[in-house]
Amino acid sequence: MNLHKTGIATPSTKAKFRPLSLDKVRVGGFFGPRIDTICATTARTLFDRCIEAGMLDQVDPDRPNPGQVIPFTHNSTVTTQMFWDSDFGKSIETAAYALNHREDGELEALCDTVIAAYGRLQQADGYLNSWYIRIEPGQRWTNLRDRHELYNAGHMIEGAIAYYHATGKRAFLDMLCRYADHIDETFGPEAGQLRGYPGHPELELALVKLGRVTGERRYLELARFFVDERGRDPKYFDIEAARRGERPDAFHFGTFEYCQAHQPVREQTRVVGHAVRAAYLYAGMADVATEFSDDSLTGPLDTLWSHLTDRNLYITGGFGPSADNEGLTFDYDLPNETAYAETCASVALVFWASRMLGRGADGRYADIMEQSLYNNALAGLSLDGTRFFYDNPLESRGGHHRWTWHRCPCCPPNISRLVASVGSYIYGVADGEVAVHLYNASEAEIEVGGTSVKLVQTTDYPLKGAVDIAVEPTTACRFTLSLRVPAWSRSGRVWINGEPVDVAVKAGYLRLERNWAPGDRVGLELDLTPRRVYANPRITVDQGRTALMRGPFVYCLEETDNGADLNALVLPDAAPLLEEDVDDLGGIVRLTASGFRETWHGEGTLYSLAPPTREAAQLTAIPYYAWDNREPGAMLTWIRREDTK
Amino acid sequence: MNLHKTGIATPSTKAKFRPLSLDKVRVGGFFGPRIDTICATTARTLFDRCIEAGMLDQVDPDRPNPGQVIPFTHNSTVTTQMFWDSDFGKSIETAAYALNHREDGELEALCDTVIAAYGRLQQADGYLNSWYIRIEPGQRWTNLRDRHELYNAGHMIEGAIAYYHATGKRAFLDMLCRYADHIDETFGPEAGQLRGYPGHPELELALVKLGRVTGERRYLELARFFVDERGRDPKYFDIEAARRGERPDAFHFGTFEYCQAHQPVREQTRVVGHAVRAAYLYAGMADVATEFSDDSLTGPLDTLWSHLTDRNLYITGGFGPSADNEGLTFDYDLPNETAYAETCASVALVFWASRMLGRGADGRYADIMEQSLYNNALAGLSLDGTRFFYDNPLESRGGHHRWTWHRCPCCPPNISRLVASVGSYIYGVADGEVAVHLYNASEAEIEVGGTSVKLVQTTDYPLKGAVDIAVEPTTACRFTLSLRVPAWSRSGRVWINGEPVDVAVKAGYLRLERNWAPGDRVGLELDLTPRRVYANPRITVDQGRTALMRGPFVYCLEETDNGADLNALVLPDAAPLLEEDVDDLGGIVRLTASGFRETWHGEGTLYSLAPPTREAAQLTAIPYYAWDNREPGAMLTWIRREDTK
Repeated sequence: MNLHKTGIATPSTKAKFRPLSLDKVRVGGFFGPRIDTICATTARTLFDRCIEAGMLDQVDPDRPNPGQVIPFTHNSTVTTQMFWDSDFGKSIETAAYALNHREDGELEALCDTVIAAYGRLQQADGYLNSWYIRIEPGQRWTNLRDRHELYNAGHMIEGAIAYYHATGKRAFLDMLCRYADHIDETFGPEAGQLRGYPGHPELELALVKLGRVTGERRYLELARFFVDERGRDPKYFDIEAARRGERPDAFHFGTFEYCQAHQPVREQTRVVGHAVRAAYLYAGMADVATEFSDDSLTGPLDTLWSHLTDRNLYITGGFGPSADNEGLTFDYDLPNETAYAETCASVALVFWASRMLGRGADGRYADIMEQSLYNNALAGLSLDGTRFFYDNPLESRGGHHRWTWHRCPCCPPNISRLVASVGSYIYGVADGEVAVHLYNASEAEIEVGGTSVKLVQTTDYPLKGAVDIAVEPTTACRFTLSLRVPAWSRSGRVWINGEPVDVAVKAGYLRLERNWAPGDRVGLELDLTPRRVYANPRITVDQGRTALMRGPFVYCLEETDNGADLNALVLPDAAPLLEEDVDDLGGIVRLTASGFRETWHGEGTLYSLAPPTREAAQLTAIPYYAWDNREPGAMLTWIRREDTK
Repeated sequence: MNLHKTGIATPSTKAKFRPLSLDKVRVGGFFGPRIDTICATTARTLFDRCIEAGMLDQVDPDRPNPGQVIPFTHNSTVTTQMFWDSDFGKSIETAAYALNHREDGELEALCDTVIAAYGRLQQADGYLNSWYIRIEPGQRWTNLRDRHELYNAGHMIEGAIAYYHATGKRAFLDMLCRYADHIDETFGPEAGQLRGYPGHPELELALVKLGRVTGERRYLELARFFVDERGRDPKYFDIEAARRGERPDAFHFGTFEYCQAHQPVREQTRVVGHAVRAAYLYAGMADVATEFSDDSLTGPLDTLWSHLTDRNLYITGGFGPSADNEGLTFDYDLPNETAYAETCASVALVFWASRMLGRGADGRYADIMEQSLYNNALAGLSLDGTRFFYDNPLESRGGHHRWTWHRCPCCPPNISRLVASVGSYIYGVADGEVAVHLYNASEAEIEVGGTSVKLVQTTDYPLKGAVDIAVEPTTACRFTLSLRVPAWSRSGRVWINGEPVDVAVKAGYLRLERNWAPGDRVGLELDLTPRRVYANPRITVDQGRTALMRGPFVYCLEETDNGADLNALVLPDAAPLLEEDVDDLGGIVRLTASGFRETWHGEGTLYSLAPPTREAAQLTAIPYYAWDNREPGAMLTWIRREDTK
């Protein structure tokens, strides 16, 4: 996407933008009903499925040991059962965000039950991993490369922080602090410490969160240690493999590019390997860059960001086309029908993008955050909150549908926790500046420059383009209110107290610095005119095709609206895209256009000498996130176009 | 392809068409220089590479045992070293066809060296497999499912027959007859016999060849046994796995669809699994159907044929889109850039198609035989005879090139033996009928109705459409000369001794029954006007695109002629396709047309709101088989079209 109209500003290296914790934001508008659904259904569903799968039996030392339930994969190296703590961590996190939105004694009691089991499980030294305590005792810290031990710790830390914010209860957070302290003692550069780092990054960003909530700098420093140590020679994963008596080259995935440990992070220039690992790592790096004002990470992060967004990102904000490595292949390899584009990877990209905003508001990051959130990520959850996509193709012949659970259930709680916590992605707060990254009806309590400011956003965005923000400081105070203007918006008109303000968009934001007084109102008008998007010729499969967008939404054709054989439909470049508000699918703007349908003249054969003929046909498109919520059928994002100009 | 203008005739179930052995045919014309290249280069290259790989060390008991040289794959089940006998078998077969075309004492001596080593290797009971005799002694016949033991036997039998025809030397043939006798004793329905069958079919068709050359009916019956036994319950491969102490469900490929042993062959209706296995099996089935006039096989074979050609065949005559199973996936799954379309599979399809002609000449089979031969198969061999394609995508970004050898070197000798023996696919001979399936300058000696007939084809086909056939019986005799008229030819005008003959094309052939006398001349004119082909809308990736063909050739665009970004080129439906004879690439008809090139307006980005603009551009296409013989670069078969009518 040609994102910028006015050039790219270098973010201030001094700025430290941090998100609001969710207890400071109330969310309605577009996301309101989606969070309501998570409160009413999904949060509970996640626990039910985890418990049905046997997870609580593994966690709770008072229950009979279930032993290994899920078979090993990858040449006897890994079972998804090793990640069960992460599933509970993310489920508790989701429940916490739900409790933040709406009280639910039953859900809270369920969380307390699981947390109590973890309390009984935790070892005297603070260690807390149900696989290694109960299924493979004595093996802890022997295989960081494959077995997600530190990854699990990260997800539990995130869950504990969220639960603390939502309920004020410290038990789980205290437990995880003790575990983090144990990890801090175990890993580090000192003699007797292990110089390891997560095989699946995640803990890095969790430790930064933990440092922020506890004020304990050692957690930030441990995150920095993991970032700095990663990929150094000799490779820790080789040392560890040799210690296990294994040949280092027996690594199932062959290359440490898989886990972004092939080079020190500051030398990495290309986004490679497993997509979720990559984005979690870069999110953690960005957090470390912010907290330590570390400019030596900022350059590499920008290079990696450009490599992803300029060469390897689906229009839906998904990435990682291949199921083989659940990740990246080669530049411009963006097949539609076989796109893996894991839900977790787009969730992770939202994390990464949001953390790239830590050093200053910049549309390069916020636009992609929004694009990934509203498309690839949001598609991961059915509208009724009961079913989940793991992979997110941009085209389907009709066989791709959400499932109710998965043997590797990473995506359901991941998209759920993202949607339930979307309020914390709306604002970024630094000294003297409040950035509005996303528009969604909401109320936020913000501390800026020592003054408490209430911001009330009133908007139907992303269905309508008008945004109204009431700025209510307790007393008048000077700060900059930075409003994002997406690069695709042809308009970025802004008013303060009804008066137009003449200010240029800079790096994707309108920066309004003034003495804000109680009662001030800001109006913003974004242009949601539907638009056609065209792909770089190196994305070979998208040539002769166009994708439709409106606001942040990518649109798609579904069989239920358009009949079968979606690739028989042709959209002329000149055909107007008509907008229609409909209540279907939770309320969307439907797009329609006049085009053609080709008729094939070779019934029963594969190839014909007779060219297809064409008749007029209506094309109906809906937002990509909402597909596969009605009659199952085919879906198409990149629509055949015809140059009619 | 809409193949038939005049309906489909049911072949006579009495007819038994058999090919000519290659010593009865001399080939010039289009294939002449290609066979010359195999004689001059490829035949010798194959031996050199086999011997460099260590194959002769394994075969020759007088040499030190090399042990296992190539690692196991598929969870320690298989190594390609187990197939080395097949590589030698096919290399000897290729050399034999080369010797048939042109004497070469050095090449013959090389064959004799390898054959002599096999002579020393053969066991007293006739057993002859270098892996099991030297590398894993004592393990013979314990894993038919995975280890290619009977497959190797088949290829060696084919090599021995070819070498006998070419040189008159019987030593290798006698050796393989003794081995076939041993197999015949070992496998069968009697007590004490094994009810097994090849994990990789091939032996079936080889045994039919052996029965034909030796006149020994028991080889035909053994072929029939393997066909009949296949896929019956209880599954032999399960029994065998249990005998090895393995869990049957530990089979690496999961399903016996992989090797077409999931059902008895007469119940199979869909072409599934590994593509080469499938086509070899069906070829053997068709041979058995012909030799035993077995109508119970004919129906299933026709159903399987339709399933392949109506739903799963690339325009190039390749099939099997997936690298995972080297085979089939689901109907209409025909991706271009990731097409596996193994060279061996299209070679095997030529075998299968040629054997479907055993019960009567029918254009449904012969057209596909020709299409596969001239496109996917022929692409497998570089014009200079030194490099080989294993997989044959229909589109490449520039990274796909022929290699000089492969750890699994099945394709090089397979395409070489096919090209070198193309003379035996031109004619089919039955009682009272000679069918001309392919047109290529050639001379053949045929026995029909007890009379010896010389047929001399003079033609530049497939570059020109005129074919002249001199019919020279030793004395006048009555028989039917059936001339194929490809379904794509708009003309099928025919003359006898200069007089037009008014006869309709029936099931793809003009059937000329008369008393043929010495000096008779038949003229045929086929229409090679270049044509556009359009794909069924279920082949989603080919929509909005066209493939160009002329005669049997599929055309493609190469970067060296058209510049980069081949998907930026657009060919209007109305643009004339201009033909030009050129000497390049061994002599081709080049096609050119006026179209457009789109220019992208989003430099450095992936997606742009600016539609591409277009300028006039010339498109230049060459036959697909000839691609990647000049400057390496991108290639495209399905070209973007524009409906301009």
